[in-house]
Amino acid sequence: MQQSCSVNKYWAYNRWQSLNRWEETYRKNTPTSRALFDKSRQMHINGVSHNIRYYEPYPFVTAHSSGRYLIDVDANKYTDYWMGHWSLILGHSSDYILTKIKEQLNLGWMYGTVNRQTLELSELISKAIPVAERIRYVTSGTEAVMYATRLARAFTGRRIIAKIDGGWHGYASDLLKTVNWPFTEPESSGITSDEYVISIPYNDIEKSLEILTSVKEQLAGIMVEPILGGAGCIPAEYDYLASLQEFASKSGALFMLDEIVTGFRLKYGGMYDDIGLSPDIITLGKVVGGGLSIGVICGRSEVMDVANTSQMSRKRRCYIGGGTFSANPVSMVAGAATLETLKNNPAIYQKINRLGAQTRDKIGKILKDKLQMTGAGSLFMIHFPKDITKPIKDAATVFECDTNMLYNYHMYLMAKENIFFLPGKLGAVSNAHDESDVKDIIRATERFVADEL
Amino acid sequence: MQQSCSVNKYWAYNRWQSLNRWEETYRKNTPTSRALFDKSRQMHINGVSHNIRYYEPYPFVTAHSSGRYLIDVDANKYTDYWMGHWSLILGHSSDYILTKIKEQLNLGWMYGTVNRQTLELSELISKAIPVAERIRYVTSGTEAVMYATRLARAFTGRRIIAKIDGGWHGYASDLLKTVNWPFTEPESSGITSDEYVISIPYNDIEKSLEILTSVKEQLAGIMVEPILGGAGCIPAEYDYLASLQEFASKSGALFMLDEIVTGFRLKYGGMYDDIGLSPDIITLGKVVGGGLSIGVICGRSEVMDVANTSQMSRKRRCYIGGGTFSANPVSMVAGAATLETLKNNPAIYQKINRLGAQTRDKIGKILKDKLQMTGAGSLFMIHFPKDITKPIKDAATVFECDTNMLYNYHMYLMAKENIFFLPGKLGAVSNAHDESDVKDIIRATERFVADEL
Repeated sequence: MQQSCSVNKYWAYNRWQSLNRWEETYRKNTPTSRALFDKSRQMHINGVSHNIRYYEPYPFVTAHSSGRYLIDVDANKYTDYWMGHWSLILGHSSDYILTKIKEQLNLGWMYGTVNRQTLELSELISKAIPVAERIRYVTSGTEAVMYATRLARAFTGRRIIAKIDGGWHGYASDLLKTVNWPFTEPESSGITSDEYVISIPYNDIEKSLEILTSVKEQLAGIMVEPILGGAGCIPAEYDYLASLQEFASKSGALFMLDEIVTGFRLKYGGMYDDIGLSPDIITLGKVVGGGLSIGVICGRSEVMDVANTSQMSRKRRCYIGGGTFSANPVSMVAGAATLETLKNNPAIYQKINRLGAQTRDKIGKILKDKLQMTGAGSLFMIHFPKDITKPIKDAATVFECDTNMLYNYHMYLMAKENIFFLPGKLGAVSNAHDESDVKDIIRATERFVADEL
Repeated sequence: MQQSCSVNKYWAYNRWQSLNRWEETYRKNTPTSRALFDKSRQMHINGVSHNIRYYEPYPFVTAHSSGRYLIDVDANKYTDYWMGHWSLILGHSSDYILTKIKEQLNLGWMYGTVNRQTLELSELISKAIPVAERIRYVTSGTEAVMYATRLARAFTGRRIIAKIDGGWHGYASDLLKTVNWPFTEPESSGITSDEYVISIPYNDIEKSLEILTSVKEQLAGIMVEPILGGAGCIPAEYDYLASLQEFASKSGALFMLDEIVTGFRLKYGGMYDDIGLSPDIITLGKVVGGGLSIGVICGRSEVMDVANTSQMSRKRRCYIGGGTFSANPVSMVAGAATLETLKNNPAIYQKINRLGAQTRDKIGKILKDKLQMTGAGSLFMIHFPKDITKPIKDAATVFECDTNMLYNYHMYLMAKENIFFLPGKLGAVSNAHDESDVKDIIRATERFVADEL
């Protein structure tokens, strides 16, 4: 699985267009986007502010959004499954959240101080996530994960963090390793050292424990997503996570769950307790900010308090953010309004999880010998395996799929069916979607399959 | 200046209260804050989400803000000079910005795609900051600086970044060194390596060049604030910055200006061109987001394009954020509305810079043998030097001042005069302040000095 390979997959992503039959239609639909993106390319690195937002021939330029829709500058109206990097569980501009954010804006949007809005969000999180004995808000998921690894290293006095092959935890220098296949090449130039990050294969207990055992004495923590997100929307096997937690506990390392995608996505709270886990640290983001900037590190007070500057000497303290925008009242209110809505309406999870399951099941049945679906709850992703007998169980099997076909599919959906996925990425059903969207995507997929496969 | 010292200054900050005569008044004014902060301490690390927001005996809890005021949960109304970590140049809830943000909210607050709102902000920034040939938006200043150092290392193929003794660039692992006096102890446990960060004394050309020369061949870049912010609000001597730039240029390293505080604060645009500089990279934040979450890395296209994933091979590319919330339309619109206001009303800079100058001059004259003022434009900070003959010229001379007296002063202002500075930090005049505020702070300072000194 880890043999070296000269093919640059990411590079290939950006060059897939020669294979794409829908480019002409897309171009015809999006002339204003094209002109504006030409301007954007002049002003911004590759025209974007997040590498994954670029795709060939050019990304459309969003004008506005509403409910289940993204509307571009050419007035194309897309049913959106990207949903703000999966942060908008209630859909775009959900009424109640909109009202609450506007109310807060009248009361100010930036205090830079302790504020009551933060207490309200924290009470909701604390009750829903019992292991969140202490919380710290930061501004992004990248920051949350950076500080979580620092806490693990500070608490244990050790340096090595283990992550998963294909695990994505943002662009922080401390974990930017083994994101892309074949997981043996550096992800970035300009990183001073990644020797204290090791990588283990997902859902492979034996191999993972073998690698972990080899660094047992130096292991500060294990960081894992309960559903491998960016790398293929693959739920972990419960036994796998339990084994990692047990190993961490026995060897004096921390077990850290990155629930930035899964927190409050599958059910009200984290995923961890449903699967019998008790992590030392959890990171949250996305849903808990209602679509506004947020990152959360929370966990056992014994661990978290290493960052308490009133209790710890400078020598011992772990110095973590915060930052200017941490716990700003607008993100706090948007988050609290979202969580309140989810708490008071359990039917929302029933609905979006049902729609997610229907989408997975029905697309999965369309062409059983050509595609596989992964996901859980309202999250789903389609894969076109080159070898259909090989189950999608980790990032390596995802990267072995026909990613050009996946791009082709997403491009077809965009150009011909007005359905938007960020090309190559998973989709998320929101509360703004309904049964008709399931029907639409099924029909669209059937047409694509009939035409293309 | 760099002799080792067993006194832990930061620790002392948190224990200053025994010296404070105004604690009783403060406690009497803020019973609800006290009760709420007790709750906050249960839920959050040290009760806060940014270490500097904690002060003894407890920080007040903000309820709302408006114009020049922060209002706490006990209805105390403070004239605010903290102004959202100095991000709110127009004051709290400025009408035009409020209207524009609300308009944008109706059009959605999270797209996760290229959007026209970003183009509008970038056009303003590009015109005002000619060296911003390419821009990338991120979510915080911490992120901006992390990626800037990565770019410098990637572009040069070298590893060492030079920073200033006392320079504060956020909590990113890549630059978390030599923040606090005596600049010889680690700032945090849990950092894997800070051997590739070196530190130079501010405004000391000779010593700085000596240190830089010793690592010339490995130097990737120099990162410097044109006004030392968190460490004392001290403008750099122009010759000093020019010498650093010249050294960087001659030795093949990048010259990077951290203008997160100063960008669009002193004048419309960056500080760099007024002082004849031409940096390779500039970081921006605070003002350019109108008080909402933002970080900006911009600079020469040749340098920035190392991060272009369409042009660079995986081996060569510098992989930087972005992130979920980067270029979100609400921050973009708040930033653009702020810059438009500043551009169309040059009187704003005239006014806030005049009020800043008056505050510095008049407070400075109150007790010439006891205190010194630093700052520039609308930024100002008071210092109580133990040796008044020693000019405040770098972070070391700031840390040698009577910081207990400074806390005492800020606590007095809060408890008795309803004027808020984050204790120990600089103040910023906003467009919501006016001449009466200058008079108020002068009179308040006179009363403090009469009583205390």
